[in-house]
Amino acid sequence: MRDPVRLLVLGTGQMGAGIVRLVGRRRGLALVGVFGRRTERAGLDVGTTIGLDAPLGLPIRSDLERLCDEVRPDVAIQTTCSRASDAEPELTALLERGVDAITIAEEMAWPAAQSPEVAARLDALARARGATLLGTGVNPGFVLDLLILVLTAVCADVTSITATRTNDLSPYGPTVLAAQGVGLSPDAFRRGVEAGSVIGHFGFRESIAMIAATLGWEIERVEETREPIVARVRRKTPFVTVEPGRVAGCEHTAVARVAGRTAISLVHPQQVHPELEGVATGDRIEIDGTPPVRLSGSPEIPGGLATVALAVNAIPRVLAAPPGLVSMADLPPPAAVLGDARQARDPLRRPDHG
Amino acid sequence: MRDPVRLLVLGTGQMGAGIVRLVGRRRGLALVGVFGRRTERAGLDVGTTIGLDAPLGLPIRSDLERLCDEVRPDVAIQTTCSRASDAEPELTALLERGVDAITIAEEMAWPAAQSPEVAARLDALARARGATLLGTGVNPGFVLDLLILVLTAVCADVTSITATRTNDLSPYGPTVLAAQGVGLSPDAFRRGVEAGSVIGHFGFRESIAMIAATLGWEIERVEETREPIVARVRRKTPFVTVEPGRVAGCEHTAVARVAGRTAISLVHPQQVHPELEGVATGDRIEIDGTPPVRLSGSPEIPGGLATVALAVNAIPRVLAAPPGLVSMADLPPPAAVLGDARQARDPLRRPDHG
Repeated sequence: MRDPVRLLVLGTGQMGAGIVRLVGRRRGLALVGVFGRRTERAGLDVGTTIGLDAPLGLPIRSDLERLCDEVRPDVAIQTTCSRASDAEPELTALLERGVDAITIAEEMAWPAAQSPEVAARLDALARARGATLLGTGVNPGFVLDLLILVLTAVCADVTSITATRTNDLSPYGPTVLAAQGVGLSPDAFRRGVEAGSVIGHFGFRESIAMIAATLGWEIERVEETREPIVARVRRKTPFVTVEPGRVAGCEHTAVARVAGRTAISLVHPQQVHPELEGVATGDRIEIDGTPPVRLSGSPEIPGGLATVALAVNAIPRVLAAPPGLVSMADLPPPAAVLGDARQARDPLRRPDHG
Repeated sequence: MRDPVRLLVLGTGQMGAGIVRLVGRRRGLALVGVFGRRTERAGLDVGTTIGLDAPLGLPIRSDLERLCDEVRPDVAIQTTCSRASDAEPELTALLERGVDAITIAEEMAWPAAQSPEVAARLDALARARGATLLGTGVNPGFVLDLLILVLTAVCADVTSITATRTNDLSPYGPTVLAAQGVGLSPDAFRRGVEAGSVIGHFGFRESIAMIAATLGWEIERVEETREPIVARVRRKTPFVTVEPGRVAGCEHTAVARVAGRTAISLVHPQQVHPELEGVATGDRIEIDGTPPVRLSGSPEIPGGLATVALAVNAIPRVLAAPPGLVSMADLPPPAAVLGDARQARDPLRRPDHG
């Protein structure tokens, strides 16, 4: 039996912690290092810091390059940021050492959409060093792009795509809530949208670019709108209390036009406690084409759990992939890897049927 | 611009005809030949035979090897049969000539499940000649296997999978209806199941094997049951009239056990006019795991249209794939290819983001 796959995790927040927990339950994976940006956490035990029952005997490190050189990981998962430009230095350090990398930075799901120069640099570096770089995550990376694409496979033609993801922000902390304008007055929300402090969803540009490039559509224009979801009843979470008349969340919509028509409409209302006003959470994909396809589920695929799983499940596929920057639309179809990660089928190189 | 992709179609039935029609609407694909097994059709014009408005100027041929040598296709789609053993001679003729092949023969979706020797021979031949061979179709190949696998990608663990596909057989002809026992008495249905004349769905073994191999599960046992769906009202199609008390269809179920528990349950009730008794058609996937995933759509993804689209949409991915026998779980995620087939992204070899 080969040695376990040596994994390095970047980030000790909710996503990094979730990945460390999951890796501990998966056969064939060995956590060999954890990097944290905050130097004040350096030296603390990973297990204690993320709330495991026992220490892991592994200190959080804030010196990424040296850590890499010491522990020599096969693959790393980056959970430290959202923007490609912010992700680039850490990814560069990994790729320069030939380490395959998986990042959940939203912009990295399709970095050419908003950061083509970063994408080109990372792709060239990955190829030069024989490493693979994948961006993934629940959204962008799965619900509003990859899953839609897979459903179009049954279509002879597609005229338009509408997908809605309605989720519940109640479990999230102050940073996420502020980015959605939760707790603001409707006026302050609108000013925040203009000023760029109310962001809404991060990932529509990436999802639309992935869909369009894969289907073969040329996008003419993308228009985004961010509307406040105004509470009619009191909505309370551990981090915020939204009184009636204040903003409970952001309905963020992106519409892409192709050949003069509306081709892709992505709708993502995010709010705290939608159920208090009778709003069910869920994912819904509607493809108008031949044949039309409708698929929906409620509640929504939970974002945090799903992102952790997608990143860890991607490990065998990234290890098997050819070098370069790849997307979820490039690798073999994602799936849970429940057996030994070392024995996972390596479909590209060895179609071992049976 | 490169020359169009040269396509050969095997079979002039409903699926072959659907593929010929769709290829005519896709840029970058050129239909260069059509093979039919029935020698009495040889020489007839393809367009006239399949009901196009005008002749295609292409005769149906029944001499496959010579046709191949004359028209030198890049890729072929086989629609002539269901069994791997029946598919093998034609696939062998194609692969020997280095022609990439896509087959909708149900058993070829995962031929190792029931015909491991055929699978091994075809895989070896494909590798030797540098050709790729893919089995696809709506089911097996998509709804009850690939789509399930893709949804498990968001799961940290999976305890069990239940998927139900309820469809309407009303559009189908006598061969399909007889295989489902439509029109029989319940007693005759049960005798037909024992005698092997009432078959039910063809593809559960393939779907279960694809799911298990990809997730990393070892299947201990698969049990199938075929129960008559007895009409309570008269159900009439152009090909059959089912009186109350007679069989309107077959509810075919396959249950696979892993590590002592029921891990995969696939349920496929097929019948004529289910709506006459208030039964809605649809596809439903339920994954018990962390997190649980539920997705459903009604009506069902229509089988005939979807199989045609899946086969044609697979062309660019098969052309770009490494040699050998591959499955839908091996190639990059399937998707509609709406632009020029020659310009379709070639994800494995050239991640051209943007």
